[in-house]
Amino acid sequence: MASSAFRFEVEHTDATSQGRAALWTTPHGVVQTPAFMPVGTAATVKGLTPDQLAAAGVQMVLANTYHLALRPGADVVAELGGLHRLMHWNGPILTDSGGFQVFSLAKLTRVDDEQVLFRSHLDGSPFALSPETAIRIQESLGADCIMCLDECPPHGVSPEQLQAAVDRTTCWAMRCKEAQQRTDQALFGIVQGGTDPVLRERSARGLVPLLFPGYAIGGLGVGEEPSAMYTALETTVPLLPADRPRYLMGVGRPIDLVEGVLRGVDLFDCVMPTRNGRNATAFTSRGLLRLRNACHQRDPRPLDEECDCPVCRQFSRGYLRHLFLANEMLGPILLSLHNVAFYQRLMADLRAACRADRGTEFRAIQLARWETSF
Amino acid sequence: MASSAFRFEVEHTDATSQGRAALWTTPHGVVQTPAFMPVGTAATVKGLTPDQLAAAGVQMVLANTYHLALRPGADVVAELGGLHRLMHWNGPILTDSGGFQVFSLAKLTRVDDEQVLFRSHLDGSPFALSPETAIRIQESLGADCIMCLDECPPHGVSPEQLQAAVDRTTCWAMRCKEAQQRTDQALFGIVQGGTDPVLRERSARGLVPLLFPGYAIGGLGVGEEPSAMYTALETTVPLLPADRPRYLMGVGRPIDLVEGVLRGVDLFDCVMPTRNGRNATAFTSRGLLRLRNACHQRDPRPLDEECDCPVCRQFSRGYLRHLFLANEMLGPILLSLHNVAFYQRLMADLRAACRADRGTEFRAIQLARWETSF
Repeated sequence: MASSAFRFEVEHTDATSQGRAALWTTPHGVVQTPAFMPVGTAATVKGLTPDQLAAAGVQMVLANTYHLALRPGADVVAELGGLHRLMHWNGPILTDSGGFQVFSLAKLTRVDDEQVLFRSHLDGSPFALSPETAIRIQESLGADCIMCLDECPPHGVSPEQLQAAVDRTTCWAMRCKEAQQRTDQALFGIVQGGTDPVLRERSARGLVPLLFPGYAIGGLGVGEEPSAMYTALETTVPLLPADRPRYLMGVGRPIDLVEGVLRGVDLFDCVMPTRNGRNATAFTSRGLLRLRNACHQRDPRPLDEECDCPVCRQFSRGYLRHLFLANEMLGPILLSLHNVAFYQRLMADLRAACRADRGTEFRAIQLARWETSF
Repeated sequence: MASSAFRFEVEHTDATSQGRAALWTTPHGVVQTPAFMPVGTAATVKGLTPDQLAAAGVQMVLANTYHLALRPGADVVAELGGLHRLMHWNGPILTDSGGFQVFSLAKLTRVDDEQVLFRSHLDGSPFALSPETAIRIQESLGADCIMCLDECPPHGVSPEQLQAAVDRTTCWAMRCKEAQQRTDQALFGIVQGGTDPVLRERSARGLVPLLFPGYAIGGLGVGEEPSAMYTALETTVPLLPADRPRYLMGVGRPIDLVEGVLRGVDLFDCVMPTRNGRNATAFTSRGLLRLRNACHQRDPRPLDEECDCPVCRQFSRGYLRHLFLANEMLGPILLSLHNVAFYQRLMADLRAACRADRGTEFRAIQLARWETSF
C-alpha cells in the first residue's frame, strides 16, 4: 500500500480532449503532469549530471530494475543509500519491474506462473525473477514509484498467448501487492492486452479492483502502428480510475506524447531524447536536425532558435557538428541535454494547453510545424 | 607585437624558492599564476562543458592548432566567430603552434628550413606548416596567447640534431614575429635544447632579444627522467626575463607542477587530468585512486574527503566505480571534472604557498602525503 505521502490532484481537464493537468505528490517532491521521465537505465541518464537534468526542467527520472539488479546489484545500491543518494537525484524516481528487459533482453531459460528463469545478457549468469523478488529488489532500490512484474509479449503473438499474458500479469499483480512491505513507494499495476480492446478490458477488470495508486499501460510502442497504439489508448484509458496517475510505458516520439496526453495519459518515459542525442539527432520546434549533415558546417545558429536551453544559448550548429565529426564526448552530451530540455518543454506546453482548454488546437499547431519529420 | 591588453605583474616571489605569484592580464580576463590550463584539443576539454570548467576553477584553456587546422579547419573556426565564441569559453585561451603534433602525430613528408610538409593523421591529406602559416592559422583561431612554430625533436636525438632544432626554432621565431599582424594576441617564443644546458642557453640567447611578451619552455616531459627535467628548468628559467610569463609546455604530473612552480614556471598544460579521468583514475590529496578496483564497490566515501568539488560533494566511490563498470559516459565525465578541479586547487595552493614564502615547505608536505603514487 502507498501511504499518504502520495496524492494525485487533477487540477483541470481539457475541454477539447481527455488531456489533464495534475499535481502528483511523492515522497521526493511534486510532479506536474503530464510529465516525461528521461531514462536512467543504470542509475544515470546517459551523459548528463543531475544538475544538468534539473536545469533542463526534469522533474522525475526512471531507472531499470533489470540492469541495476545485474550490475551493481540491488544490495550494493541499498548499501550505498538507495537510488536517490546513489545518483544524487533528490527528485522522484520510478523503477520498472525488470519484466520488460527479462523478456526482451535476457536469454530466457524457463517461464511459468511461478517465476521467470533467465540468464544475464552481460555474462550469462543465472537469475530468477518472481513477483516477490521484483518487489523485494525495487524496495532495495528505493524509488518513489515501483511497478508490478508483468508479462509483456512481443508484438504479433497469437490472441491466446496475449490472453495468457494478461491473466498471468493479473495474477502476478496480486502477488506483488501482497509482497509489498514499504509504505513509502507507490506500486502501479500494469494493464496488458496489446491492441485488443477485449483483452485490455479483461486486464483492467482484473487490476482495477486491486486499488493500485496508479496504473501503467504496457505492451504498446512495441512495433504496432501508431494509429493502433492511439486506438488502444482510447479503449484502455477510460477503463482506469480517473483519480490516479496513468503511465504509458516506453513511449515515445514527440507526436506520441501529444496524442497520449490528449487521450488522458499523465506519465511517459522513453530513451529517444538521449539515444537520438548520442546519434547526433536533435529534436527542434521545426522537426529533426541531423547534425552530421554537411549543411551545418558553418552554421552559427543554435539548434533551435525558439529554444532557451543551455545548449541553444551557448553553442552553434557548426560547433556541435564539429564535435560529432571529431568524436568528442561533448557532442552526445550537449545533444542529449538539448533533447531532454525539448521533451520537458513539450510536456510543459502540453500541460499549459490542457489548462487552457486548447489541447486539440495545440496538437494541430504542432503537427503543422513538425511536418513529417517526427 | 602584443598590445597593452596584456600585463604581467609579479605580486610576490617566494623567499624559499623561485616560485612566484603573479597576475597576467589578457584580453579575456586576468589569470592568477601559477596556473594550469586543461587541454581542449579539438576546442573542447573532453567531456566537460565550459560551465563545468569554470565551476572547477579553470581560468584558461589550451587548444591545439594542428587538430583544429585539420578539423574543422581554421577558416570554419573563424567563420563561427573564433575559438572563444565557438567553444563558448569567454576566458583566456592559448593555442600551440601545431609544431609538436606535426612532429609527433602526423606523417612527415619533408622538413626543411622553409616549412614542414606532412600528411594528416586523420585521412592522409597533405598539409604545409611554415612559421607564417602557423601564425596565420592562430590568428584565425583567435586565442589570447599564441606560440611560435618550433621544432621539437624526440628525446634522445644527437647533440647535432638538437642544436639544429634550436637554430631552426630561433630562425622560425623571427619569421613568426615578423608574420604577426593581430595586436591582441601575445606571441610566445619557445626555448628548445632538451636537457643540454649549453643548447638551452643558445636557444634563450637567440629568443630573448626578440622581446617576446612571454616564453615557453618546450622539449621537456618528452621521455627524460623527471630529475633531468627539473635540472633543465633550473638552467633555463634564469635565462628568461623575470617580468614575463614562463610556460612549461605539456607538463605534467602534480609533482611536476610543484617542482616547476618552485623553479619559477608560471603556466602549465597537460592532458593528464582528463585522460586519467577517462581511464578511471582519480587524483586525490592522498594519491591516485583507481576506480575500477573491487575495493571501491560498496564505498560510500567521496573520491577525496578533502575535496569540495561538485563530484566529491555529490557522488560516492561506489557509484563512480559502477559507472565505469557499466561503461556509462558519466564516469569519465565526473572523474575528469574532479581531476581538473584537483589540478586547479593544487595551483591555487601553490600560489598561496608562494605568497606566504612557504614554497619548499608546501613541497615537503605534498611529497609526504602523495607518497610514491603520483
